[in-house]
Amino acid sequence: MRASRLLSKTLREDPAEAETASHRLMLRAGMMQQVAAGVYAYLPLALRSLQKIERIIREEMDAADGQEVRMPTLHPLELWQATGRDKSVGPILFQLQDRRERRMVLAPTHEEVVTNLLKANTASYRDLPRQVYQIQTKFRDEQRPRAGLLRGREFDMMDAYSFDADEEGLDLSYSRMLEAYNNVFKRCGIPSLTVEADSGAIGGKESHEFIMPAESGEDVVLSCREGHYAANVERARSVPPLAPTTEPQPLALIDTPSTETIAELVELLGIAETQVLKAVFYQADGQTVLVTIRGDLEVNEVKLKNHLHAADLRMATDEESRTAGLTPGSTSPIGVRRSANGGVRTIGDTSIQQGASFAAGANEAGKHYVGANFPRDFEVDEVVEIATAQEGHGCPVCGEPIVAIRGIEVGHVFKLGEFYSKALGADYLDETGTQHPIVMGCYGIGVSRMLAAAIEQNHDDAGIIFPTPIAPYQVHLVTLNTDDDDVTAAAERLYDQLMAAGFEVLFDDRPESPGVKFNDADLIGLPVRLVMSRRNLAAGAVELRRRAGGQARSVPLAEVFSAVRAALDEG
Amino acid sequence: MRASRLLSKTLREDPAEAETASHRLMLRAGMMQQVAAGVYAYLPLALRSLQKIERIIREEMDAADGQEVRMPTLHPLELWQATGRDKSVGPILFQLQDRRERRMVLAPTHEEVVTNLLKANTASYRDLPRQVYQIQTKFRDEQRPRAGLLRGREFDMMDAYSFDADEEGLDLSYSRMLEAYNNVFKRCGIPSLTVEADSGAIGGKESHEFIMPAESGEDVVLSCREGHYAANVERARSVPPLAPTTEPQPLALIDTPSTETIAELVELLGIAETQVLKAVFYQADGQTVLVTIRGDLEVNEVKLKNHLHAADLRMATDEESRTAGLTPGSTSPIGVRRSANGGVRTIGDTSIQQGASFAAGANEAGKHYVGANFPRDFEVDEVVEIATAQEGHGCPVCGEPIVAIRGIEVGHVFKLGEFYSKALGADYLDETGTQHPIVMGCYGIGVSRMLAAAIEQNHDDAGIIFPTPIAPYQVHLVTLNTDDDDVTAAAERLYDQLMAAGFEVLFDDRPESPGVKFNDADLIGLPVRLVMSRRNLAAGAVELRRRAGGQARSVPLAEVFSAVRAALDEG
Repeated sequence: MRASRLLSKTLREDPAEAETASHRLMLRAGMMQQVAAGVYAYLPLALRSLQKIERIIREEMDAADGQEVRMPTLHPLELWQATGRDKSVGPILFQLQDRRERRMVLAPTHEEVVTNLLKANTASYRDLPRQVYQIQTKFRDEQRPRAGLLRGREFDMMDAYSFDADEEGLDLSYSRMLEAYNNVFKRCGIPSLTVEADSGAIGGKESHEFIMPAESGEDVVLSCREGHYAANVERARSVPPLAPTTEPQPLALIDTPSTETIAELVELLGIAETQVLKAVFYQADGQTVLVTIRGDLEVNEVKLKNHLHAADLRMATDEESRTAGLTPGSTSPIGVRRSANGGVRTIGDTSIQQGASFAAGANEAGKHYVGANFPRDFEVDEVVEIATAQEGHGCPVCGEPIVAIRGIEVGHVFKLGEFYSKALGADYLDETGTQHPIVMGCYGIGVSRMLAAAIEQNHDDAGIIFPTPIAPYQVHLVTLNTDDDDVTAAAERLYDQLMAAGFEVLFDDRPESPGVKFNDADLIGLPVRLVMSRRNLAAGAVELRRRAGGQARSVPLAEVFSAVRAALDEG
Repeated sequence: MRASRLLSKTLREDPAEAETASHRLMLRAGMMQQVAAGVYAYLPLALRSLQKIERIIREEMDAADGQEVRMPTLHPLELWQATGRDKSVGPILFQLQDRRERRMVLAPTHEEVVTNLLKANTASYRDLPRQVYQIQTKFRDEQRPRAGLLRGREFDMMDAYSFDADEEGLDLSYSRMLEAYNNVFKRCGIPSLTVEADSGAIGGKESHEFIMPAESGEDVVLSCREGHYAANVERARSVPPLAPTTEPQPLALIDTPSTETIAELVELLGIAETQVLKAVFYQADGQTVLVTIRGDLEVNEVKLKNHLHAADLRMATDEESRTAGLTPGSTSPIGVRRSANGGVRTIGDTSIQQGASFAAGANEAGKHYVGANFPRDFEVDEVVEIATAQEGHGCPVCGEPIVAIRGIEVGHVFKLGEFYSKALGADYLDETGTQHPIVMGCYGIGVSRMLAAAIEQNHDDAGIIFPTPIAPYQVHLVTLNTDDDDVTAAAERLYDQLMAAGFEVLFDDRPESPGVKFNDADLIGLPVRLVMSRRNLAAGAVELRRRAGGQARSVPLAEVFSAVRAALDEG
């Protein structure tokens, strides 16, 4: 492709609206244009990258016995009502009415439609297992679309679904898919971490995310340095530090004037945060819940929500706390009327079992307890591991400190089980003629997000540094001295030869200054830059530079193919 | 692909809802499943065909200097308001509100978005011409979705757009695109006619349709047998038959009791339909229009609407005719108060000039005129060619009779001119620094409709007869006697060998009866069927049959590749 004919132009200035590196660089490199908030048109450079990612995904899915389909975007709302997802998916679901006033949905995902597809095409165990996938545009009416392709409202996904006769079959399909996903990310040149993930309130027994490490990522992974364990922070377990060992002391009420926070209490009493209990009051689907946890830890609300099977969970307001007889700022687990007695549901984190003689709220302004011991001085309805894992806590497998890694979620896989097949009646007959629901898994890769994540991971101040497998073109051939016919002819010849040899070449044949051309080449970030100029031509050579680093060097024209090939192989 | 693992199953019975052959056969062959009215999921067999069509389109568009992009489905309504198309496109435009109550549109086409794309990337004449295309899902809320993929609400299109500095450039882009389109249809193995088409009320100077001949088609093409002329009936010109030559007679009012139709009048007077004038009364955007045309011809309302530049055109009601002083059943061009005198706008078809002494209405029940001569006895505001062309009329080029051909529109191209670039301010600077609007063309191919049209064109009672270039697989390898290990082993070996030789094979390895397997092979309609059986194996042969016709014949196993290749080359 000649730069002089390329549809897109580069921008010299950073667009004001760009929030992250990929957003900024994709706009500046002329890869995309915003059409609405979170909605973009892909220009040729972006589309070529996306199509390379799609090709790799197709090959890996086909190798894993996947059969490609293309399901529609418009779904009848009734179909989503049948699984209750019209409600559970919430306001991200775009809805509309057609001209006959039938309510429809723009699909953010396709579990319902694919389950009906299999239902119509599955009679017996002989028709299982099946793997189905599609690469398709998805729609999510995000509250806050951000960062270009990282969180859009219209985006590209590969979604796959597995259908098995039983849990053992699902385990096999799931592990094949994990392997296929790892192959995809590896082949795209974008390292990712496979981490345990929250499987949500609905059914799923097991779930993993694929996280591409990047500073700008919204996801936090807690990972064992030794590689024993890695999980999304929503899901991660950890071993919190030990509280100081002390003899149990008697419970005593003390004056703590103007002490409302843990930090103030710790300072006043000269103790550690591990020696304090905090009590946090929640509303879960209208039910009132009091969680007691050690002062150095935070309640993991995802874990709490899953434990309660709650559709809606939030902190209680001060007003609601008072109504339940609690004092905000000094909420206490001691003396709370428990659910057994018609009061609030009380949950203790496992951390309250490790340690003794805690300071705790007293349900009275200006007072706290000291010497609070569990279960001597208070009880809870249940003790559950409900704390948020933190960097520095111990790995739940080996105990060594875990580290926090920021990253971008580019894939997510779930063992769905029978939720959808039961809701929609997708059954099969086993060898004995007995009917069972099909056992399902679902598997998603954010295709457009992968491209953005790759750029978040691979860029410098000058622009993008494309991994070779997903670069729009492999070679950026830049010709200088365009007023010199000999140089132009040599550059044209080299362009033709490179293409004839099978290289993908972007040929900057524009009559621009070397500065403009080099800046554009750095911005677009193709793996190999070749420069033809009067000086190079005189030397019978061309200048080669890898975008990923290393010095520019002169390559004799006779050796240019092998030199380019070697440079591309470096990744 | 093994049939035993294929996602889809065939249906033995015709689905009740299927209206046309492609609809019926695609459902029966397990190629698609309906999700909502006019909304389908494509199963693997359909998707493979669609992807082959897409690949051919991409290659031809790239060869015509097209640059592929992917524009989004969600557009802000404001963008459509800027060109007035929110109104002119009408109720086929799906609309919705996002969570911030911004109104959005599901795009049925992308002129607005692509014009903005070019606007942002075009500075001067040096940036022109440009050709842009995409293959993408489109949405149209059809009043009456019908016939499966022939008229869906969610469907696949290739839409291309050209951008030129002037009309000469547009002419060149347009003719290159016509050539590319013809290449696409030829390479897909689906003959199509290029015909002149109506370019609508908006701007367009020139337009062509690509029509695939098929009985079930909704479009009618009028075509010269000698190939001088072909046009959609909405657009077609023709030379109507001559009226008998007579001497002008004096105008006379006669009694014609109980005579309200042309047929009754012709019978009563013993004359030909060519010797009658009929006057038809329309309402066009609130204006009243009287069209006078010869009795053997019909008013072409598309031509009339374009001539009047009317947004809305319909026949007047009897009530409206009476209000204008006319008598329904005997409406007369004679004595009508013309627009020059504050009356109705009167238009005569050119046919009123050929012939003399017509019978005509008298604006009085039970009476008609005879001997009516134009312009001796009545005048009109303008004479315009406004008749519908009919089979048997003369070709406007050579005069020989034209024939009517039914078909399916699979492509449509327009010279748009400056409508969108003016509305959205997409300008360029010429060599002198003067600003001009970019001159545009647009070009669409219905990808999913092409697949359905190909099946309408290519099927028999037993099923689909796929043209080789777009068949999901090339070879249907059927193995019989699946209880015989030797036969099974030989079939498996042949399957592997065919695939290793690069053939695309659907391998029916199911333990079904020969009848079921042959019926399925005929239904799915792959170009070549190979049968392995105990008898064939004993003869060291395989049975080969072309789906498109011809006898089954025995081919020695050693010659199977060349025999299959030769059979595929037959098309």
